[in-house]
Amino acid sequence: MLILMENQATEAQIQAVCQRIEALGFNPHVMPGATSTAVGVTGNTGPIGEDPFTAMPGVARLITVTRGFKLVSREFRSDLVGRDTRVQVGPDPDAAFGNGTFGLIAGPCSVESQEQILAAAHAVKRTGARFLRGGAFKPRTSPYAFQGLKEDGLKLLAEARDATGLRIVTEVKDTETLPMLADYADVLQVGARNMQNFSLLEAVGATGKPVLLKRGMSATITELLHAAEYIASSRRDQPGQDDIILCERGIRTFETITRNTFDINAIPVLKRMTHLPVIADPSHGIGIASDVPAIALAALAAGADGAIIEVHPDPARALSDGAQSLSPEAFDALVAKLRQLAPIVDKNIP
Amino acid sequence: MLILMENQATEAQIQAVCQRIEALGFNPHVMPGATSTAVGVTGNTGPIGEDPFTAMPGVARLITVTRGFKLVSREFRSDLVGRDTRVQVGPDPDAAFGNGTFGLIAGPCSVESQEQILAAAHAVKRTGARFLRGGAFKPRTSPYAFQGLKEDGLKLLAEARDATGLRIVTEVKDTETLPMLADYADVLQVGARNMQNFSLLEAVGATGKPVLLKRGMSATITELLHAAEYIASSRRDQPGQDDIILCERGIRTFETITRNTFDINAIPVLKRMTHLPVIADPSHGIGIASDVPAIALAALAAGADGAIIEVHPDPARALSDGAQSLSPEAFDALVAKLRQLAPIVDKNIP
Amino acid sequence: MLILMENQATEAQIQAVCQRIEALGFNPHVMPGATSTAVGVTGNTGPIGEDPFTAMPGVARLITVTRGFKLVSREFRSDLVGRDTRVQVGPDPDAAFGNGTFGLIAGPCSVESQEQILAAAHAVKRTGARFLRGGAFKPRTSPYAFQGLKEDGLKLLAEARDATGLRIVTEVKDTETLPMLADYADVLQVGARNMQNFSLLEAVGATGKPVLLKRGMSATITELLHAAEYIASSRRDQPGQDDIILCERGIRTFETITRNTFDINAIPVLKRMTHLPVIADPSHGIGIASDVPAIALAALAAGADGAIIEVHPDPARALSDGAQSLSPEAFDALVAKLRQLAPIVDKNIP
Amino acid sequence: MLILMENQATEAQIQAVCQRIEALGFNPHVMPGATSTAVGVTGNTGPIGEDPFTAMPGVARLITVTRGFKLVSREFRSDLVGRDTRVQVGPDPDAAFGNGTFGLIAGPCSVESQEQILAAAHAVKRTGARFLRGGAFKPRTSPYAFQGLKEDGLKLLAEARDATGLRIVTEVKDTETLPMLADYADVLQVGARNMQNFSLLEAVGATGKPVLLKRGMSATITELLHAAEYIASSRRDQPGQDDIILCERGIRTFETITRNTFDINAIPVLKRMTHLPVIADPSHGIGIASDVPAIALAALAAGADGAIIEVHPDPARALSDGAQSLSPEAFDALVAKLRQLAPIVDKNIP
Repeated sequence: MLILMENQATEAQIQAVCQRIEALGFNPHVMPGATSTAVGVTGNTGPIGEDPFTAMPGVARLITVTRGFKLVSREFRSDLVGRDTRVQVGPDPDAAFGNGTFGLIAGPCSVESQEQILAAAHAVKRTGARFLRGGAFKPRTSPYAFQGLKEDGLKLLAEARDATGLRIVTEVKDTETLPMLADYADVLQVGARNMQNFSLLEAVGATGKPVLLKRGMSATITELLHAAEYIASSRRDQPGQDDIILCERGIRTFETITRNTFDINAIPVLKRMTHLPVIADPSHGIGIASDVPAIALAALAAGADGAIIEVHPDPARALSDGAQSLSPEAFDALVAKLRQLAPIVDKNIP
Repeated sequence: MLILMENQATEAQIQAVCQRIEALGFNPHVMPGATSTAVGVTGNTGPIGEDPFTAMPGVARLITVTRGFKLVSREFRSDLVGRDTRVQVGPDPDAAFGNGTFGLIAGPCSVESQEQILAAAHAVKRTGARFLRGGAFKPRTSPYAFQGLKEDGLKLLAEARDATGLRIVTEVKDTETLPMLADYADVLQVGARNMQNFSLLEAVGATGKPVLLKRGMSATITELLHAAEYIASSRRDQPGQDDIILCERGIRTFETITRNTFDINAIPVLKRMTHLPVIADPSHGIGIASDVPAIALAALAAGADGAIIEVHPDPARALSDGAQSLSPEAFDALVAKLRQLAPIVDKNIP
Repeated sequence: MLILMENQATEAQIQAVCQRIEALGFNPHVMPGATSTAVGVTGNTGPIGEDPFTAMPGVARLITVTRGFKLVSREFRSDLVGRDTRVQVGPDPDAAFGNGTFGLIAGPCSVESQEQILAAAHAVKRTGARFLRGGAFKPRTSPYAFQGLKEDGLKLLAEARDATGLRIVTEVKDTETLPMLADYADVLQVGARNMQNFSLLEAVGATGKPVLLKRGMSATITELLHAAEYIASSRRDQPGQDDIILCERGIRTFETITRNTFDINAIPVLKRMTHLPVIADPSHGIGIASDVPAIALAALAAGADGAIIEVHPDPARALSDGAQSLSPEAFDALVAKLRQLAPIVDKNIP
Repeated sequence: MLILMENQATEAQIQAVCQRIEALGFNPHVMPGATSTAVGVTGNTGPIGEDPFTAMPGVARLITVTRGFKLVSREFRSDLVGRDTRVQVGPDPDAAFGNGTFGLIAGPCSVESQEQILAAAHAVKRTGARFLRGGAFKPRTSPYAFQGLKEDGLKLLAEARDATGLRIVTEVKDTETLPMLADYADVLQVGARNMQNFSLLEAVGATGKPVLLKRGMSATITELLHAAEYIASSRRDQPGQDDIILCERGIRTFETITRNTFDINAIPVLKRMTHLPVIADPSHGIGIASDVPAIALAALAAGADGAIIEVHPDPARALSDGAQSLSPEAFDALVAKLRQLAPIVDKNIP
């Protein structure tokens, strides 16, 4: 940590800061400048809380150098040099994300009926994708909007899995329904609105199941990694510690012509900072079906380890998110393009 | 709702849209324009979901006119013409927010010790404020940061209430700890990160207790009202339906010199849209102790019905948020200024 | 400046950084940490460019401590301790901004006709305000929108000045029309879109006239001060060096229910960082006429040194910005409230 | 246009709105709803100004359907069905952007010396790129930063063109230096800070030269198209009307770990809205050299018609933007990847 003192800070204030640093067991380094003084802190092995210093007289600003996450950082898995964590779901070695494998998740926003989810599942299966998405519990902005089929939806997802062999990815709503959901799901999806629901992160962590963690709509990249650290630390040194898939799904900006602004930068930046796989959600990232393929291809080109894409057998009749859902035909065409592109960026689509 | 068709939309596509409108029991109004056609929808009494239309061929864009909240809207309480809902907490008629009463909540970010919380409570009491804040369960970005004293913190808050008569405002962390927290708290605070944790909103609603609902850091004003609607609708026609206090606490923008950007605009806009009281959190809104009074005064001048302010007996030793906490002396001076300002904007500070 | 090295930086890379620091005539301070090393730079009297270091091997991040502005900083006018620069326009000592004086500028968005501008001027004059605003050259997003009356508009403004004695504030469009505009205007307004038009800033600076500098819609507070420094440095040690009035007018955020987000935080923060007066534009800051008074009062409460407010004799017939313009009656009522509030925050409205 | 009336709007207010619509020569369509009334406007052939309606009593909100740009819209060039405008610079048919051709611009941020710019030019030439970038006039946030070599820089660029045959792309600073700059440059670059400098847009338009127009850092996609319309309309029906290349270069958001947020969504959205070529600036878009290739590949995958990339013979010694500049070797490797990717998305890199 670096502590910048105010221009007018007195010698006594600087000394007080140094004493507090020493009291915490660290070493102060006073660096007098032409207009102000900075005090460096060394000797720490983890992050130093800002709280002991922020309100001390004469302190202008703190600069944190050490980060608040560790298990998910690339440095922590230095044994993986040049390689990433690979999250495999179930016994099929091709149902996986990361370390060269580009995993594809597709399906409707919400499970609506047996006919709909089976049609979607067969369409997804046909392309070679290994994962079916579908919401049974839907968090909605208004209390009066369709909230999902709940356990009936989960049962239909299980039926689709039995029929196709696809692995099921579905969103967790809360800790109350988590045990039921975990009985049906293969991958537990934590949605954008819950990225900083820390109790839910810990509960999801405790299940040991693979997790798909979406970035919050105004979360920084660093905050996403801290959220992942909550999951990893709640299953530390246990199986599944690294079974966390990060997902960029668009952030909220001033631009309103698109539903969100897909932060393509997040992909290479995350790949440098963490060993975990990073996938893209182009459907929410742009929110316009005809533009989803462009963003999906871009994400792969930028180094993503997978994608989650909304596909509906009849988008015009979807109960939710129809405007951003691909038809099965459009999805077929997209997967064909992704397969052409993958080898150029050293990825494999099973 | 207004449905804008694409420039190249065909007559058949326009007819299909009209038929779907009629199938839902509403009336279509076709408006041909020079370059494109719009179709208006009337006959609805509540909001119409966008989903049946977004993905229909030829549809360019939907414009929603009717809103997804009702119980919290100003129109719903037209019996209150010219007056607002007043949320009173407990038997003291001066422990209240709204309809002319400016309520003051103050205290430390976290409960740290008996000595600290009692010192804070007495300092708050001395100014005439009726509410003590203090966190016992702290949601923190990193899993390794101080997470609060938990039930011990709640007991210390109850002790401070016994000693001073102040009402207790404290943050809810999750549905698991809610029942315990509701045993101690007078007002349940829903933090910014939980504003769209819909299960928690419903659980908080079911307690019937007064709720302080903070705006999410990237939530729109409309989304805040939808979140309040979740609480109100879960206690509809029961006591406490309107006991919801909204709180502007700063939004996330590109500006980094301040912790957040306090959205002063939200105050008059919310006051026009809802009958509920609207208060300000200038401590998080700017994050710099020396500037908190300026923002608190601004919020009152803009029409706020109260404020929640971080006050610590010794900010330089605070375990969290010291940089934005006022000393008791600074808080005294601020309350004196607020009392001078209040009558000019037709508010009363008990 | 502080240079953070990457975790894996080698000893040779650290040495290379130190050598470059010394080659520039400064002093390196190596601070080894548990996971990475930082190198502090001291001995500089002005800002150090980042460019010599950013791309050196092993460098992770630079942290700039010294700022790129000087003449406009509060420290530069330490002779003014506890007092601010006061910008007086013309011979009337009450036509001023800053150091306790709250200056009021009002008038229509655009000059539309002789009748309109004279009616507006008389309405403004009646309240005691000393400044008339009115646009003659209007920068508009679309090339097909009304662009202003140009020199005819300037002549009408001069006529209104002759009739009322009000000082004229009008927006500069470009360097070509600046000399003509400077012949008519008392205060040159630099609009938000031109805040980083550096050639225009220098040209405006060279006129020696008082300048009203608006914050760009996505400019940081620091960038606003750098823009002011361009003006001040282009008239350094000449009359008028400090005749610069800064204006917060709302920033662009994700919130769309208001035209902009008025950044109330900018007022106290700027007041700490600079000796220049800081005024508010609540009309653009919120964009909704009925809410403008709330924001104007808030700005004064937060410490603003003035306000610029759109007033139109008949807002419903305005050629531009009618939705945010006050009627003369509404403006009267606002000024009465501002006069009540001013003494509480130690301001004087002449 | 659609005019939404307030819930409490009276019949007389609705009639007044209809009368004003008719007075302007358009047709009103009253649509009564359950809670409020909307009035549609038809009969217009261009955009209707909002100003006549915004401040009328009873009007709640306006919704603009017709856009303020025309010449640059895809509909305007419907003769190009399925094809885009192709901007060719000079006699070489391969020095072009759009309609299937992916054009590459590369070179240093600033021209620093003869040796530097010639080394850069030869490195760029070697890859097959046809365009050399290099700034001679540099707009800088602080008045004390390096401002470029000015005319000496232009002369060095011309020398590099003579030596390599590359076409020169360089940034326009202001209307004063535009004629000189236009003497040397093949493509006039309008930088992000000048995107809404309308006088400069018109002056650049009047030269008839190809223009590279960068998106402002907080400009919406629609505002970028309006800015392009300024250029096109100032050379309407003259040669060069369509010689405008749009450039996405990253927008300003809350994320601070990257210099800007590259808005990949803008590429497919712009390609649907305009017939003009759209290129990417990944160097400014992410600001971290090691991540520039990922973003460049993503932009091509999303449908971009070219890229402008900072390349410096010795990034560690660059006078500006070293941290985001590629070495010649890194640029070689990137171009090789781009060439592999191009045919998959139906592009040709000459």
